[in-house]
Amino acid sequence: MFAEAEADPSLSKDEFKPLEMRLRVALLNAQYQRLEKADKALLVVVAGIDGAGKGATVNLLNEWMDPRHIRTLAYGPAEGEELERPPFWRYWKDLPPKGSTGIVFGSWYAPLLIESARKKPNQDALEAQCAAIRRFEAMLAAEGVQIIKLWFHLSAKAQKDRAQRLLASPETSWQVSPVDLKVYKKYDRIRAGGQIVMNHTDSGHAPWVVIPSADENMRSARTAEAVLAAMRQRGVPRIPQSFLAHSGPVRIVNRLGELDYDAKIDKGDYESELGLLQGRLARAARSKKFQERSLVLVFEGQDAAGKGGAIRRVTHALDARQFDITPVAAPNSYELSRPYLWRFWRQLPRHGRIAIFDRSWYGRVLVERVEKLTAPAHWRRAYAEINDFEAQLAASGAIVLKFWLAVTADVQLERFKEREKSPFKNFKITPDDWRNRDKWKEYAAAANEMLTRTDVAHAPWHLVSANDKRYARLQVLRHVVEAMENSL
Amino acid sequence: MFAEAEADPSLSKDEFKPLEMRLRVALLNAQYQRLEKADKALLVVVAGIDGAGKGATVNLLNEWMDPRHIRTLAYGPAEGEELERPPFWRYWKDLPPKGSTGIVFGSWYAPLLIESARKKPNQDALEAQCAAIRRFEAMLAAEGVQIIKLWFHLSAKAQKDRAQRLLASPETSWQVSPVDLKVYKKYDRIRAGGQIVMNHTDSGHAPWVVIPSADENMRSARTAEAVLAAMRQRGVPRIPQSFLAHSGPVRIVNRLGELDYDAKIDKGDYESELGLLQGRLARAARSKKFQERSLVLVFEGQDAAGKGGAIRRVTHALDARQFDITPVAAPNSYELSRPYLWRFWRQLPRHGRIAIFDRSWYGRVLVERVEKLTAPAHWRRAYAEINDFEAQLAASGAIVLKFWLAVTADVQLERFKEREKSPFKNFKITPDDWRNRDKWKEYAAAANEMLTRTDVAHAPWHLVSANDKRYARLQVLRHVVEAMENSL
Repeated sequence: MFAEAEADPSLSKDEFKPLEMRLRVALLNAQYQRLEKADKALLVVVAGIDGAGKGATVNLLNEWMDPRHIRTLAYGPAEGEELERPPFWRYWKDLPPKGSTGIVFGSWYAPLLIESARKKPNQDALEAQCAAIRRFEAMLAAEGVQIIKLWFHLSAKAQKDRAQRLLASPETSWQVSPVDLKVYKKYDRIRAGGQIVMNHTDSGHAPWVVIPSADENMRSARTAEAVLAAMRQRGVPRIPQSFLAHSGPVRIVNRLGELDYDAKIDKGDYESELGLLQGRLARAARSKKFQERSLVLVFEGQDAAGKGGAIRRVTHALDARQFDITPVAAPNSYELSRPYLWRFWRQLPRHGRIAIFDRSWYGRVLVERVEKLTAPAHWRRAYAEINDFEAQLAASGAIVLKFWLAVTADVQLERFKEREKSPFKNFKITPDDWRNRDKWKEYAAAANEMLTRTDVAHAPWHLVSANDKRYARLQVLRHVVEAMENSL
Repeated sequence: MFAEAEADPSLSKDEFKPLEMRLRVALLNAQYQRLEKADKALLVVVAGIDGAGKGATVNLLNEWMDPRHIRTLAYGPAEGEELERPPFWRYWKDLPPKGSTGIVFGSWYAPLLIESARKKPNQDALEAQCAAIRRFEAMLAAEGVQIIKLWFHLSAKAQKDRAQRLLASPETSWQVSPVDLKVYKKYDRIRAGGQIVMNHTDSGHAPWVVIPSADENMRSARTAEAVLAAMRQRGVPRIPQSFLAHSGPVRIVNRLGELDYDAKIDKGDYESELGLLQGRLARAARSKKFQERSLVLVFEGQDAAGKGGAIRRVTHALDARQFDITPVAAPNSYELSRPYLWRFWRQLPRHGRIAIFDRSWYGRVLVERVEKLTAPAHWRRAYAEINDFEAQLAASGAIVLKFWLAVTADVQLERFKEREKSPFKNFKITPDDWRNRDKWKEYAAAANEMLTRTDVAHAPWHLVSANDKRYARLQVLRHVVEAMENSL
C-alpha cells in the first residue's frame, strides 16, 4: 500500500511543468462542469504522515482551481459546544453545497488515527468507530456528497531529511512545529495506524489514495490527479449494502388502527392536571442535571391533529431562552443542495436546551414518500439513516421523544370545516390539506410503517389519541415529564 | 410614562372576546401582507418588570399569528464564543429575514437595564451603551429591520399579589421562579432603570410601548395592538441624524495618485525575506497571547492586482485550522433579505483565529456605488456604519488590517492579456473585468474617498503598490507581522 510512496519518487521540473499546465486546465474545466451540474459536492479528506506537506494542499487547490468555490474545513480536538452534540455534528453542519468542494483537515479520521496508532489499540472501539464512519460516508455518498481521502506519505528517511533541511535555515525552520518534532519519532506507529484505518474504511464510493509526498512536484501532481479523477466521476456510485445502515425485515403493525380514539378528559380535571404537569416540567427543565442533557421533541400527526396547541402547552412551562421551535416545511434551495438530514443536524440543541420540531425528518418517509417527492430508494434507506441519527443523538446525551398525534377522519373533517369558517384559523387550512386528506390511507400506511421501523428504546414513538385535544395535550406533557424525570 | 400601566387596567371577558377576534384577523392579514412584500423584518423586543408575563408573549404571538414565520430569539448572559466577538454579534447573526418576525428576549437592553437598575448607575457607561444601541437600531431600521420594544408593566402591588396568588397553588406555583422572588424586592429600582433606558432610547423608528400587564386580557390585547401597529407601518421611517453613526466632512486625498508604483524587489531577496516574514507570522499566530485575540484581514484592490497570490503567501504560514478565507461576491437572495453587513458579521473569527476577506464590506462603497447597485443614501451612510463595525471588532480584541493592492492601468492591461492567453488563468477574467476597467476613474475616486473616510487607527488601510507582485506580497506580510507582533 505504501511501497510506491516510500520509494520517495520525484518529478523533475521538466517533467512537472507540462503536467502542471495540463492538470490545471483539466481541474478548472472539471470544477466548472460540476458547478454547472451542481448535483454533487466533493469532500477532499486530508490525512497522512506528519511533515508530508498536507497543509500545502489548501494553497495548491486554491491556486490551481477557482478558489471561490472551495472551502477549507479544518477541525482540532472537539471543544466547547461541539462536545454537547454527537461527534459528527461539526462535520454535518459545515457540509458544502452541491457543486462546490471542501478540503477537510482534522476529519472524522483524526480520533481513529490516534487510537489506531497507540501501542495497543482498543480493537472494539476501533471497529465501532470504523463502522460509524462507513455508515456516515455511505450516507453522504448516497445523498450527493462525494468523498475522496488522501493519505500523504513518504519514507521515514525522507521525513527526517526534510525536517533537518528545513530546520537548518531561519527562512524555513518555522515550517517544522514543535509538535512535528515529537511525531517524527512515531513514524512506524502512525504508518501502522494509517494502514489499519485504510483497510477498514476504503471503498469504491469513498476511496483512499496514497500521495507520494517526499517531492513537492510529485505531491502536487498526484494530489491534482486524484482530485481530478474524483471530479470527473459521474452519477452516484453503487454503495455496497454492508456500508449502509440498515433495518431488517419487520411485520408492519397497524398501530393507528389499534388506537383508542375515544379517550378524553373533562375540563376541570384538565386544568388542574395541566398545571401540575407543567410544574413538574418546569422544575425538570430548570434542574442542574438537565444542564448536562438536552431534549429533542418531534411532533408528527395528521393535519389538524393539534400539534401546535400541544407544543404551546409544553413551551408554556419553559423559559424562552431554553427552547427553539423549528417548523418544518418543504426544503428550500439552500437545503436541497445538501443531504436530507443536514437541516436537522444544524438545529440540534446544546446541553440544557430543548429543540422542538413541528414536523421533522420523518417527512422523508411520510409526505415525500406518499407524494412521490423522492425516489423509493431514498425513503427506503431513510428508516435506517434516521435510526442511526437518533442513536447518535441519544448517545450524546439528548433525550429524544417522538409524538404522533392521531385523529380519526371524521374529527379531522370537523376541524377542517371549523378552520374554514374561522376568520383567524382559515390560514391553517389550504388546498394541500384537502388533497392530503384524499390520501388518508396512503398516509396511514406510511405512518404505520414508520412507527414500526423507527420506534426504538432510545427514541420512542408515543402514539397519542388526539380526537380530544385536552387528552392529547396531557398525554404529551406526561410523556415529556416522565422521560425528563427518569433521565435526570 | 407608567401611570396608565400602574393603574393596572383590565378587560372583562365580554370586552376581550370581540377584540381578540378582530385583532387576530388583523394580525394575520398584516403578517401575510408583510410576508408577501418581504421588504422588512420585524423585531419585537420584550422587556419590563419581572412577573409581568413577558414570557407569555411567545405563546400569544405564536397562537395568534402564523407561527411558521415567527422566531423566538432569546439570550442569557453572554458566554463561550459569544464573549470572543463584539457584544452585538449574537444579535446580528440571528437576524430574521425580511417578511418574518423575531421575538427578542434578553436583548441588547439586558445589560443596560442591569446597569441602570444599580444603586448608583455609572452614567458614562450608560450613555455610551445607549449611544451604541441607538446607532445599532438606527442602522437596522435603515436597512429593513423594523424594531418595536415592549415594556411589560404593572404596579408593585399587582406584582406582589400575582406572585402570592400563583404561589398559593401547586398548579401554578412553578410559574414563580426563585429568581422572580428576588427581583420582586427590587421593583422600584427596575422601574427607575426602565425609565432611564426608555428616555435614552425611545425613537420614532424604534419606539418603546408600555404594555399594562396586571390583567392577562389587557396584556394580550395591548401586545397585539402594538405589534399590529408596527406591522402596518409602511416604508422606511425617517431616522434623525443624531441616531445614526456619522462621519464628518473631510478633504478627499488622492492617495492612489500619490503612490510610488515603481517599488520592486529582486527575486533572491524576495525568497529569503518571504521565508523570514512567514516564520515571524507563524510564530505570532502560534503564540499563547494570540489565543486571546483574533485577526481580520481585508483585501481590496483593482482586478488583477494580485490579491489571491498575496493571501496565499499569508496562509502558507498558518495552520489550516486557524484561518478562513471568505471570497466576497454579489450577495445572494439569502443575504439580500438581511442588512448589508449581516453576512460579514457571521464570518467574524473566534479568538486565536484569522478571518481573511477577499473583497469585503467595502463593496458597498466601491462596486455598489460605482455600478449604482445601491441608492446613494445607502453607500453614503456606509462609511460611518463600517467605521462603527470595525471599532466594535477592534474593541472585542480583533486586530483589523485592510489592504488596497494598487496597480496602474497599464500593468492591469498586461495582466488581463496574460490571463486571457493562459488556459488556466482565463477563468479569472470576465467581461465584467473589462467593463470595470472602463470605469477606472470612477473606481479610483470611490477608492480614494473610501481610503480617506475609513482609514482609522484601530483598523488601518495599507495602500500597497502592486505593480511588482513580489514587492506587494512582502509588504502585506510585513504589515501583518508587525501588527501581530505589536499587539501581542
